[in-house]
Amino acid sequence: MRAIFPWTMNQDIDIVIFGASGDLARRKIFPAFFSLFSRGLLPEGVRFYGFARSDLSQKDFHDKIMSFLTCRYSPQESCREKMDSFLSRCEYVRGEYAADTGYRYLLDRMAAARGGGVSADRLFYLALPPEMFSIVSKRLSENSLALPEEDARCSRVIVEKPFGRDRESSDELIGELKKYFTESQTYRIDHYLGKEIVQDILVFRFANIVFQPIWNARYIEKIEILWSEELGVEGRGGYFDEYGIIRDVVQNHLFQVLSLLLMEEPDSLEANDIIDKKVDALRHIKPLRLRDVVLGQYSAGAGKPGYIEDPTVPKDSLTPTFAFLKLKVASPRWHTMPVEITAGKAMNERKAEVRIIFRKPCGSLFCKTGKCQPSNALVIRIQPDEGFHFQIATKEPGTKMELKHKNLDLSYISAFPGKTMPDAYENLLLDSIRGDKTLFIRNDELEAAWDILTPLLNEIEKSRLKPRLYKFASEGPEVKRYSRKHKLCLNPPA
Amino acid sequence: MRAIFPWTMNQDIDIVIFGASGDLARRKIFPAFFSLFSRGLLPEGVRFYGFARSDLSQKDFHDKIMSFLTCRYSPQESCREKMDSFLSRCEYVRGEYAADTGYRYLLDRMAAARGGGVSADRLFYLALPPEMFSIVSKRLSENSLALPEEDARCSRVIVEKPFGRDRESSDELIGELKKYFTESQTYRIDHYLGKEIVQDILVFRFANIVFQPIWNARYIEKIEILWSEELGVEGRGGYFDEYGIIRDVVQNHLFQVLSLLLMEEPDSLEANDIIDKKVDALRHIKPLRLRDVVLGQYSAGAGKPGYIEDPTVPKDSLTPTFAFLKLKVASPRWHTMPVEITAGKAMNERKAEVRIIFRKPCGSLFCKTGKCQPSNALVIRIQPDEGFHFQIATKEPGTKMELKHKNLDLSYISAFPGKTMPDAYENLLLDSIRGDKTLFIRNDELEAAWDILTPLLNEIEKSRLKPRLYKFASEGPEVKRYSRKHKLCLNPPA
Repeated sequence: MRAIFPWTMNQDIDIVIFGASGDLARRKIFPAFFSLFSRGLLPEGVRFYGFARSDLSQKDFHDKIMSFLTCRYSPQESCREKMDSFLSRCEYVRGEYAADTGYRYLLDRMAAARGGGVSADRLFYLALPPEMFSIVSKRLSENSLALPEEDARCSRVIVEKPFGRDRESSDELIGELKKYFTESQTYRIDHYLGKEIVQDILVFRFANIVFQPIWNARYIEKIEILWSEELGVEGRGGYFDEYGIIRDVVQNHLFQVLSLLLMEEPDSLEANDIIDKKVDALRHIKPLRLRDVVLGQYSAGAGKPGYIEDPTVPKDSLTPTFAFLKLKVASPRWHTMPVEITAGKAMNERKAEVRIIFRKPCGSLFCKTGKCQPSNALVIRIQPDEGFHFQIATKEPGTKMELKHKNLDLSYISAFPGKTMPDAYENLLLDSIRGDKTLFIRNDELEAAWDILTPLLNEIEKSRLKPRLYKFASEGPEVKRYSRKHKLCLNPPA
Repeated sequence: MRAIFPWTMNQDIDIVIFGASGDLARRKIFPAFFSLFSRGLLPEGVRFYGFARSDLSQKDFHDKIMSFLTCRYSPQESCREKMDSFLSRCEYVRGEYAADTGYRYLLDRMAAARGGGVSADRLFYLALPPEMFSIVSKRLSENSLALPEEDARCSRVIVEKPFGRDRESSDELIGELKKYFTESQTYRIDHYLGKEIVQDILVFRFANIVFQPIWNARYIEKIEILWSEELGVEGRGGYFDEYGIIRDVVQNHLFQVLSLLLMEEPDSLEANDIIDKKVDALRHIKPLRLRDVVLGQYSAGAGKPGYIEDPTVPKDSLTPTFAFLKLKVASPRWHTMPVEITAGKAMNERKAEVRIIFRKPCGSLFCKTGKCQPSNALVIRIQPDEGFHFQIATKEPGTKMELKHKNLDLSYISAFPGKTMPDAYENLLLDSIRGDKTLFIRNDELEAAWDILTPLLNEIEKSRLKPRLYKFASEGPEVKRYSRKHKLCLNPPA
């Protein structure tokens, strides 16, 4: 299984980015590879090929890449040299995705760069819409670019969301890709998993004994996951309108975070041990139905046009730009505890955070004074200003016994001063070279995630459910959150 | 039991401070009363009498008081007015403590100030050495100054440490005072209990469900209480040499903190309910013996003279200025968990803090990578910069899975910005007027605290144990702390 062995520093590697002139490649992929390169984390013999349909000269291509490279890790001067060295390893290859010509030319260029006969390991990044995955993979395979994993040289392929529209189309995508790459050669990226704070959830939970006894439904009253952005589709509604908010962020980013919060302790830190437990956690979530959700679509507000007023969106679109989902987890650890996911575009703030709300002690000492203390809560801020804070009750300084909520706070910016936080893509791309699959999505994770959502998505489409309207830059439509009056208190342990 | 009823805002109260020309009175007691007065927290009809042997004019006395008053709660201008108003209520009475004359004069002055017949409730603050408590109380009683608690008007008395030298002398002191004041009339001050952060221990423990399951020997490996100051006796060794570090800070301040850490949840926030549990906690601590301690005495260092070189200290003094004590608690909650108390003068820093160190999880995931994570710890900083911090393991940002200890932090200064933190004496003096005895030491607390220390103190004296020398401004003598190799790990709950 060479596809999951680390590629070492003296290995020759050819990295091919399909869709090289697109936004993702220019803004994220090339800059992340450059950061790794500038830090000396890539093998000396690495080379990059940008593959796309645009008619670009090598200079045009280099200019396009350059405009997004930044010197986050080294001083300006030496960085400039590193950029030149990086660009000298980047070559543009023009080609149609469905025709063999470009692929053959690519193979020729690779061989030429390596002095003819010498071959290298290969990493293919398909920064393309999913309907292209199968076509490109087939061509890679037929033109001897994709190397089988058993060989002395092998290939890996990286793909990104959307991973289909539902369980069926996801299975189909998995099946198509499988014809040309094994599961261990396939690296499915969800950039949320590359975020430091998301990786830290595992550490937080399993390296700190103090959180272990409270990490269950006995202590936790509910888990909220909140995702919002201030932007609407802003003239780029074509892709979004086909998918909607649930497929765009819930099925991938937010379910990934949720599975890390809910999973049992893995047997080891090996990728498959961790992913086994994540899959298991997802499988314990009950499939959603229409009654479990509130959907919304933004209308004009704050001087901005509404969703269906966007020129790239059909006037009669029913696509939700907001979703509120109530989930139930049927595992011994989480039985009866609700999970609430809220995700929305065109909202009043940009935020991604987890709120873990704890129960109050029953008949608490401090309630007898007339005022009960607030509940404890642990907040994991994914963005902006990533960090943890733990809401605890303390005495308000002063001559009376009055309780105040205060935060035990850990902001990454202040906790790791002067530290350059690696971008999620840097972490993930390095892992793909190391052959570490911990932070990539396994096929059965995809299946489990789609199994939760597919019945709901079918119901929404069948019923042609009209989403509730909410104003641009608002809090979204009103939703009925898990009500305070149902809250259970907790008898402290004897 | 009027002695524990709150005195209301329209009550007339005469407050008499004995030892009025001394340091404690000028630096702490008058300034605290002034702060309360300036905030409008004292009854309109309050009057103050300073009683001492010094021959001072009223003006001398006012000047002495004024020099330590500060305007922490009100703007400079209105504060000046408040100071004048405060001083107009302060009268100096000269008298010998053992003779009746001064007391009779005091009574006359009180009556005169209230227009003859009108009487007021009375609060006596004995800012005097303990050997004077009995003499002064007797005079107060015989000269009709001390009023019985059942009367329409009553008196309270405030006394400070040292509360004796051992169980026997403490009992004697309690017995003497009891002849003139009932237990409910007696307010024994330990200013540590007036500190916000010390009061917050109760809130932290019982208002936050998340800390309840881990607050026991199953999760906690050990508790450390550290107290150090950078000063030596600095020419004021007379009092200290008679008592030593154990009696000076361990028996009172540090045992008080410890009892709040160890106590079971009280039935209510009523003073007696809380103190019942504190006493119970102290009674479960095994009496100390010589083998449980390391004693030290500072020698010259950092340009400062050693303890016995101080002109106020006998050349052959064996009095410890440093003590390290290992305690065992024989209660179901704390069985097998060690408590280590370290207290020292002339050390390398000024600090008072509690360190609660948690066990590591057994066979932790992260140990398998070769490096185990550090233990969790909760640190309660009493001084300086009071606050909590919770040491947790997090992932060091970067491309490897490496763990770092980071602090979830709550500093009072940043958590309560712009808030004037009340001085410990302000809190306590207001409570003495409110009749709230929660933060005062009950007689059985004293007994229980002395019972832990008396066998040790007797052994030290009998054996004429020579303390180990340590240099001024050092970390104190070397001590053998609870060793890491004995650490037990903890299986996470199923």
